[in-house]
Amino acid sequence: MASVHSSNEDLDTKEMDDSQGGPYIHKVGVPPKQKLFKEFTNTVKETFFSDDPLRSFKHQPKSRKLVLGMQAIFPILEWGRNYNLSKFRGDLIAGLTIASLCIPQDIGYAKLANLAPQYGLYSSFVPPLIYAVMGSSRDIAIGPVAVVSLLLGTLLRNEIDYTTNPEDYLRLAFTATFFAGITQATLGILRLGFLIDFLSHAAIVGFMGGAAITIALQQLKGFLGIKKFTKKTDIISVLTSVFDSAHHGWNWQTIVIGASFLTFLIVAKYIGKKNKKFFWVPAIAPLISVVLSTFFVYITRADKQGVEIVRHIEKGINPSSVKQIFFTGDYVAKGFKIGVVAGMIALTEAIAIGRTFAAMKDYQLDGNKEMVAMGTMNIFGSFTSCYVATGSFSRSAVNYMAGCQTAVSNIIMSIVVFLTLQFITPLFKYTPNAILAAIIISAVINLIDFQAAILIWKIDKFDFVACMGAFFGVIFASVEIGLLIAVSISFAKILLQVTRPRTALLGKIPSTTVYRNIQQYPEATKVPGVMIVRVDSAIYFSNSNYIKERILRWLADEEEQLKAAYLPNIEFLIVEMSPVTDIDTSGIHALEELHRSLQKRDIQLVLANPGPVVINKLHASHVANLIGEDRIFLTVAEAVSSCSPKLVEEA
Amino acid sequence: MASVHSSNEDLDTKEMDDSQGGPYIHKVGVPPKQKLFKEFTNTVKETFFSDDPLRSFKHQPKSRKLVLGMQAIFPILEWGRNYNLSKFRGDLIAGLTIASLCIPQDIGYAKLANLAPQYGLYSSFVPPLIYAVMGSSRDIAIGPVAVVSLLLGTLLRNEIDYTTNPEDYLRLAFTATFFAGITQATLGILRLGFLIDFLSHAAIVGFMGGAAITIALQQLKGFLGIKKFTKKTDIISVLTSVFDSAHHGWNWQTIVIGASFLTFLIVAKYIGKKNKKFFWVPAIAPLISVVLSTFFVYITRADKQGVEIVRHIEKGINPSSVKQIFFTGDYVAKGFKIGVVAGMIALTEAIAIGRTFAAMKDYQLDGNKEMVAMGTMNIFGSFTSCYVATGSFSRSAVNYMAGCQTAVSNIIMSIVVFLTLQFITPLFKYTPNAILAAIIISAVINLIDFQAAILIWKIDKFDFVACMGAFFGVIFASVEIGLLIAVSISFAKILLQVTRPRTALLGKIPSTTVYRNIQQYPEATKVPGVMIVRVDSAIYFSNSNYIKERILRWLADEEEQLKAAYLPNIEFLIVEMSPVTDIDTSGIHALEELHRSLQKRDIQLVLANPGPVVINKLHASHVANLIGEDRIFLTVAEAVSSCSPKLVEEA
Repeated sequence: MASVHSSNEDLDTKEMDDSQGGPYIHKVGVPPKQKLFKEFTNTVKETFFSDDPLRSFKHQPKSRKLVLGMQAIFPILEWGRNYNLSKFRGDLIAGLTIASLCIPQDIGYAKLANLAPQYGLYSSFVPPLIYAVMGSSRDIAIGPVAVVSLLLGTLLRNEIDYTTNPEDYLRLAFTATFFAGITQATLGILRLGFLIDFLSHAAIVGFMGGAAITIALQQLKGFLGIKKFTKKTDIISVLTSVFDSAHHGWNWQTIVIGASFLTFLIVAKYIGKKNKKFFWVPAIAPLISVVLSTFFVYITRADKQGVEIVRHIEKGINPSSVKQIFFTGDYVAKGFKIGVVAGMIALTEAIAIGRTFAAMKDYQLDGNKEMVAMGTMNIFGSFTSCYVATGSFSRSAVNYMAGCQTAVSNIIMSIVVFLTLQFITPLFKYTPNAILAAIIISAVINLIDFQAAILIWKIDKFDFVACMGAFFGVIFASVEIGLLIAVSISFAKILLQVTRPRTALLGKIPSTTVYRNIQQYPEATKVPGVMIVRVDSAIYFSNSNYIKERILRWLADEEEQLKAAYLPNIEFLIVEMSPVTDIDTSGIHALEELHRSLQKRDIQLVLANPGPVVINKLHASHVANLIGEDRIFLTVAEAVSSCSPKLVEEA
Repeated sequence: MASVHSSNEDLDTKEMDDSQGGPYIHKVGVPPKQKLFKEFTNTVKETFFSDDPLRSFKHQPKSRKLVLGMQAIFPILEWGRNYNLSKFRGDLIAGLTIASLCIPQDIGYAKLANLAPQYGLYSSFVPPLIYAVMGSSRDIAIGPVAVVSLLLGTLLRNEIDYTTNPEDYLRLAFTATFFAGITQATLGILRLGFLIDFLSHAAIVGFMGGAAITIALQQLKGFLGIKKFTKKTDIISVLTSVFDSAHHGWNWQTIVIGASFLTFLIVAKYIGKKNKKFFWVPAIAPLISVVLSTFFVYITRADKQGVEIVRHIEKGINPSSVKQIFFTGDYVAKGFKIGVVAGMIALTEAIAIGRTFAAMKDYQLDGNKEMVAMGTMNIFGSFTSCYVATGSFSRSAVNYMAGCQTAVSNIIMSIVVFLTLQFITPLFKYTPNAILAAIIISAVINLIDFQAAILIWKIDKFDFVACMGAFFGVIFASVEIGLLIAVSISFAKILLQVTRPRTALLGKIPSTTVYRNIQQYPEATKVPGVMIVRVDSAIYFSNSNYIKERILRWLADEEEQLKAAYLPNIEFLIVEMSPVTDIDTSGIHALEELHRSLQKRDIQLVLANPGPVVINKLHASHVANLIGEDRIFLTVAEAVSSCSPKLVEEA
């Protein structure tokens, strides 16, 4: 049988004649042995410096390196040099827009953390300024966010009751913020940023959705004007609390105000969604609601009818809180624990936002550098009466749509918050709590991502379980339980991946020399007397035993079938090693045992295409000799062609 | 350019003409979509029933199924039917040999666990009987072992001081044994046996070596006749303790006895090693030493010269200990914790032994069934005054060499231990402790596996770090710390594997259509205008971001080089997906982002050979449409041939 090929290019048409073995067989390459030290530094580099952060420092004079170093720590030095008026116009508009959005949100979010309203505003003043100097995202809007506020509030409340001991509660909040910053900065400096990747996308979607619903449910207190409200956050406790107070505890004036403005906010949101040109409508709607409702309550004195109002916001900018942080005593460990959790979640949110917008505008974002910036900003925040700040989903989106160019929009927002704190806070006295509830509800609705959940269901059922686990965990138990479920399921998936890798039987695709999974290509044919198995993972201690036994099971199944059909027995077992990127001592032992098992059944083990690391280790362990150097081939096709002539002779 | 192939078989010579695209391009197979339920059951089956334990039950009548079921739980019903006299002869000799070895060892090991000597003998009486009925290994020898005894002793001592409160100490020991059994049986029943695979081979080698040295050091107390000895196990405390007592605390008579018999034991070991025929020499040497030394001490009354002797071993078989187990109170949780750790380590040792000998005699061993047997045996053990028993490395090897055929050798051993307990224990009164120390030292020396450590160093440097970490952790800190280090390093390796998978640039091997890693095959040539990257792992949330950024970095490096050499720019990026066995939602998003990033740089993303799971998910998520169905190829060669004609036109 012969086939003739013709082509005008040399690139891709020459093919090997692999039908006979002999001179045409290609040897499996053994890469030049690396020095131990070089191997080690390469591994370290790939693990911790995979983004090659020192790339731009190469071949530069010392003074230039200093400048680049400063620019790396303070990116503002880099982009600030090209800053101009047209960019400032974009940043000014974006900054004013997110400021109008953040002021009412901040006041509401502070409540989620069980803190007085001014702490929300404080956290929108100092952290954005520091981020603007150190951060490298151009679109992120910094400040308190709903989920982290809720999480922080829940964790803090578990330790201290804020009604009986508000002072220690506040001190613990600053302590947690301090340690959140330390955690974030440390992760960045040690280049351990990849640790946040262990919370899978699916788990985050579920966690966020659950947190959004929990937060919305919490708002029923302010929205319905209920005075006695449960302190638990699970849906059953909250709904019981709501319906128990239905007859006497609801305040109809509050409900009217809340409902009408919630309708207004949702309509504004809808308009903004329908026409991207009107993005500013939902962005300023909250501030308009606050102004209108405050004015309305002031005129009608509805607060005398039982409509709860804000009452008091401390005037003036952030006081120092350095002395309030616990550096000794029992609360240090508690603050540390809370800080680590809150800091990690805050990071996860911020990095996800940063990456999303960086991808949209196509610029690179150094995750580890971002973490250092976030950490520094929270450490300084904890010194200036702020609680954990991070990037906000909703405000970052508005920032982006309003045409922000650089982190200057954060500075603008910060200035507006500064002016608010200095001059306007007394005017918030008559703002009804129902409005804040409505604003928070309309803000967190966005966190429920149905589309993403549907897509997850379509793509990966296991991911969907993780997503739903986190979702229901948050709703029916608490944010911590939900988080724990999310992390556990994510880890379970990783463990499953490393303990139960896939293996596949290969067959030859007709009229090619290509061997592929016979499940995917039903037309692929098996080679008589030869079984070809592909192992789809590095062979490590966690799976070496499984892989060995799985291959032997493929063999047993196959032999059973062949026996039933009176076909010739298997004489060669070819293991396609292309996907086996690495093998460790346990893996080597498994191969050895496989070889011995097969020998007892008169089956020859043949390896195809071991990678550079694997072939080195096969040689180092003398397993290559055991199996036979001439039993290791470049491709499955070559391996098959070396096996089948014999079969033909013997037949 | 044309090449002509000829062959007499159809199998492997037809090759595809992939130079021109069009009719010869093979489509990527989309496997038939599985029903959700079937997909789910398949995953469950592969995870928990990967060994297909119900295989033999298929197509059998009900009564036969019952018999098979009973045989599965009690393998003795299966192998007992073919039992015969010639097998019994082998088992008898092997049983007597391991009995002679186990009696002195048991007495010594009980001391490691800070228990009276009879408890070691008890644990060699009941557990082997139960194992013989339920276990499926033919070669394992059951009883107390050195490492588990030391571990149990250390963990128990952390909770209760055995000198001041020996009663509660003993009760906690039984409680821990009970929970060790529960843990083992539960793992087996829930088919979670794979969990013990998370302790890597390298970590075990290091841990065992360290434990052996620690145990040997502990024996210096008995060996040198020291009265005041530290209770810590780290090498520094022990050696300080030894040298501090050098001037007045050593007993020369003890040293003479100990040293001469240790020499005898080591010579016996050497003889056994040199000539496999004399395997029985080291096997009975310990018993001979005990008999000789006991007789010698009895004659000379050396115990009056300060030679410490055993003094008293309780006569009679195991009393019941059901009522001594803590089922309520504080100690339940402590016993549970200790039991889980000791049970897991005991399992790890037993399964490793079982697998080794099963591989040597080529029979299958069901890990989960073994765990149920081990668990049952320890639960019953805890009711009958035994502490944690498991498979012993040294005695199993002797068992194997003595020609054991079935678990009957364990029954023989058990009977000998029974007779010893009933009649001979009083004779051990004058046995010097130094002899027991010498026996333990000569037994644990075998656990130090230099060869394995050297092989690990050669094969995998990271494994070597794990090995040394566990080794030094045990020696310089304690067994628990060593174990913790071993587990942590094993996990770190898994995390590294899933977060930092390898990627490789591919080139074409001259005169083939095979594309391989250019680092391994320096002769492979790059295709102008095309970059080919292979991703060597499933793309999951833990690595999706890294993979995306790593590919973009390959691209940046490549473009820099091309620019410097004035070569044409990259126009196609081919991602070879063969090793990508799975992709989750995060991975799909990463691909989408990669596609978008490339689009902005006018580079076309092309995929080669996505597997069955991946292609399904690409379709489910519409990423296949985004990239373009015609941009997904069966092989790299086809992908290249579809890219390069264009390049030629454009050039």
